[in-house]
Amino acid sequence: MVTLYVLRWAMSEARAVAVVTVSDRSFRGERSDVTGPVVVQWALANGWNVMEQRVVPDEVAQISDALLELCARGLPLVLTAGGTGLGPRDVTPEATRQVIDREVPGIAEVMRRTGAEYTPLAALSRALCGTCRQTLIVNLPGSPKGASQSLASVETLLPHAVDVLRASHFDHG
Amino acid sequence: MVTLYVLRWAMSEARAVAVVTVSDRSFRGERSDVTGPVVVQWALANGWNVMEQRVVPDEVAQISDALLELCARGLPLVLTAGGTGLGPRDVTPEATRQVIDREVPGIAEVMRRTGAEYTPLAALSRALCGTCRQTLIVNLPGSPKGASQSLASVETLLPHAVDVLRASHFDHG
Amino acid sequence: MVTLYVLRWAMSEARAVAVVTVSDRSFRGERSDVTGPVVVQWALANGWNVMEQRVVPDEVAQISDALLELCARGLPLVLTAGGTGLGPRDVTPEATRQVIDREVPGIAEVMRRTGAEYTPLAALSRALCGTCRQTLIVNLPGSPKGASQSLASVETLLPHAVDVLRASHFDHG
Repeated sequence: MVTLYVLRWAMSEARAVAVVTVSDRSFRGERSDVTGPVVVQWALANGWNVMEQRVVPDEVAQISDALLELCARGLPLVLTAGGTGLGPRDVTPEATRQVIDREVPGIAEVMRRTGAEYTPLAALSRALCGTCRQTLIVNLPGSPKGASQSLASVETLLPHAVDVLRASHFDHG
Repeated sequence: MVTLYVLRWAMSEARAVAVVTVSDRSFRGERSDVTGPVVVQWALANGWNVMEQRVVPDEVAQISDALLELCARGLPLVLTAGGTGLGPRDVTPEATRQVIDREVPGIAEVMRRTGAEYTPLAALSRALCGTCRQTLIVNLPGSPKGASQSLASVETLLPHAVDVLRASHFDHG
Repeated sequence: MVTLYVLRWAMSEARAVAVVTVSDRSFRGERSDVTGPVVVQWALANGWNVMEQRVVPDEVAQISDALLELCARGLPLVLTAGGTGLGPRDVTPEATRQVIDREVPGIAEVMRRTGAEYTPLAALSRALCGTCRQTLIVNLPGSPKGASQSLASVETLLPHAVDVLRASHFDHG
């Protein structure tokens, strides 16, 4: 029984996620955050435990501070939503770049390539994905539809990605 | 009527483009620039106003100087042609990297992926795309065919991209 | 006859390759290197002359030292195998980044995109490709299957890539 509890606790740790919405308007309360809840819903439906959900403005320092804090806590996955486009205030990838120690370009490639099946504008997402210590950070687009399609395209990858990232006992040759 | 003129002027500003051919030989006048005119023709046929066309040699400093000058003028789009391959003198992406403040990887991904339908060698284009202030810079291959195919693959994206880049009134969340 | 010998020598120089396996366990002799020999076999079957094969541990300094030494020798192609994943010790792309002067993103894009036809996990390869002086460096995954599939997806590109990289007589405009 004790073993089972420990296993359950370990599993919940291994599937912990934080969701960070990046939006000036939502941060100022001028617009309700629609995409954050969509991402949370996806997480719950896919076996992830949402440990935290927050909204930050489109500022490099505030985005990277939030990411660093969540990585320092050792969360396996952090999903950001918004700020990945070409708008003058869109700087989520730049903030993410400052925080990651290793880039994982293939995750963003899959999201854009799959998105292109829905709209050619998916190519304009500048989403960046990478690792910060034991945390995988994945940038998602700011629209609910874009975020959902991006998540669907990589949802089979993410559990494996965080498991490999946190493994320390076997050789990844 | 005045409104109409202002609108027309604003539209022409919003669709202004400069074309920069990067080639030692064309710069020295040893070979006529074939690809530059092909890009100009594409621009005219797609509703872009060609504000300037120039030829620079395959030198990082001269390429980046040209790009910085065109960006400082506030042109929404700058298309370069040439210098994206593996030849010893090909440094257009490196010069572009020095100038951009934000990368837009998806545009180059689409150009290479679409190019692969014609020739596997399309993967060797090191084309880089990104923004420098209010300007989108897109590297194109140096061959007329490569440049045309690349442009065709992203021509629906470019108007939207420059519109979003120059927008300052709405939230891109 | 002399011309023929010179031509043969020149051809063998132009298709020289080194294979570097990156693996802590294989370096320590705790596991036999399976992927290195698979890459060597591919090279021999595809007209490449394998000049050297070595195993290095998953350490940025030791990987980049090996790459720099092989590039200094002027080898046209260096293939690495392993260390491209998300495992805590996987740093081959970071070591490669330190060494290359120009990135060739399309080669890694093709390897990941083709790999996705076999397994969605191919997106997690962080393989980086680029040039260091006259040498093309290509990161391959550490599994024999992953390395083979990656090589198959780019084998038609590689001879052309190294030929262009070493050409110094014609304009790549």
